[in-house]
Amino acid sequence: MREIFHRELDQLVEQLVEMTRLVDTAMYRATTALLDADLALAESVIAADAAVDGFHRDLDERALELIARQQPVAGDLRTILASLRMSADLERMGDLARHVAELARLRYPRSPVPPELRATVLEMGHVAQRIVAKAGSAIARRDARAALELDRDDDEMDLLHRTLYERLLDGSWTHGVEMAVDLALAGRYYERFADHAVSVARLVAFLVGERALD
Amino acid sequence: MREIFHRELDQLVEQLVEMTRLVDTAMYRATTALLDADLALAESVIAADAAVDGFHRDLDERALELIARQQPVAGDLRTILASLRMSADLERMGDLARHVAELARLRYPRSPVPPELRATVLEMGHVAQRIVAKAGSAIARRDARAALELDRDDDEMDLLHRTLYERLLDGSWTHGVEMAVDLALAGRYYERFADHAVSVARLVAFLVGERALD
Repeated sequence: MREIFHRELDQLVEQLVEMTRLVDTAMYRATTALLDADLALAESVIAADAAVDGFHRDLDERALELIARQQPVAGDLRTILASLRMSADLERMGDLARHVAELARLRYPRSPVPPELRATVLEMGHVAQRIVAKAGSAIARRDARAALELDRDDDEMDLLHRTLYERLLDGSWTHGVEMAVDLALAGRYYERFADHAVSVARLVAFLVGERALD
Repeated sequence: MREIFHRELDQLVEQLVEMTRLVDTAMYRATTALLDADLALAESVIAADAAVDGFHRDLDERALELIARQQPVAGDLRTILASLRMSADLERMGDLARHVAELARLRYPRSPVPPELRATVLEMGHVAQRIVAKAGSAIARRDARAALELDRDDDEMDLLHRTLYERLLDGSWTHGVEMAVDLALAGRYYERFADHAVSVARLVAFLVGERALD
């Protein structure tokens, strides 16, 4: 009985790892769609978000069913509650990647990213992917310490976000209000995506039962 | 024993109602600070967000402690899990009110809202407050049906949000890029605040055990 239960817990954790892969791919494709004004790619990200939402719902159902059926002890309960939170974070990350893709679709056939900010936006995409990939590995390896290494990546995202803003607001902007508003919102989507990814990584400590959930 | 347990559950619910009051006040003051360029008021919102965060942490601790100690049956468990989600939504709403106040502080001594958009922003503040007040009442009265009435308020917020954007992007904007970016972000904060408030109201159905949590 306990063995089946722990196998089911492992399945929850595998599902979380799969969700990190889905949102990683979504953000990669959304960034490419934004920079290259690739409508088909943008549409594919928007359509694929339903799969992330499906994973989220399915994981929540299984988790609640597990709690109700197994009346788990404190440690196992923490694992399940941490999974629920991670699933909610990952679902939101899927939404944010979709928002980036929606921006690409809205402005098609042009890209809202001017040449001098392409490198910054590309790098924001890279950092977002790097953080979610590390969070996924941390879950897969049940490695609570991996989250501690994310502070530097998160600082990098904050710096890129600030760079983007300063560029929009330093008085030298010549691309008009629409593009500035698009980029301000895109910048916020990347930054929130990274915040949620960091939150997922931090929850690994609770997933592996090293700490009481606070 | 069950009686003490249910009293503790009631306390969780009271704490949620109190959190709706705090974020309602925070959004009211943040909107006023933004429109009137009132630095002291902005600072007070920013400082008060710590109280919302404290409520969130405290509620989570008590909820988890209740689950671990009482091994609640399915219906009570649903109530507790719904409280955890509502608490997370309300914590985020506190952050969003703080973001509006931070914008007011950043642009002090001027307001980033031009005369022709004051009514729109004021109305966004009103609608945000109305939704959270209704969510709070729904929790206090354990009224799962109240959430159904929020669709119209939420539509109103979406309409105001669209009005704001169209105004920024219709080509007649004369207030520069910085103000446009500020308002685009503020618009998003109000809209997200309302989304979370609607989510809180929808969770009342799970809080009162009318539906299985999905």
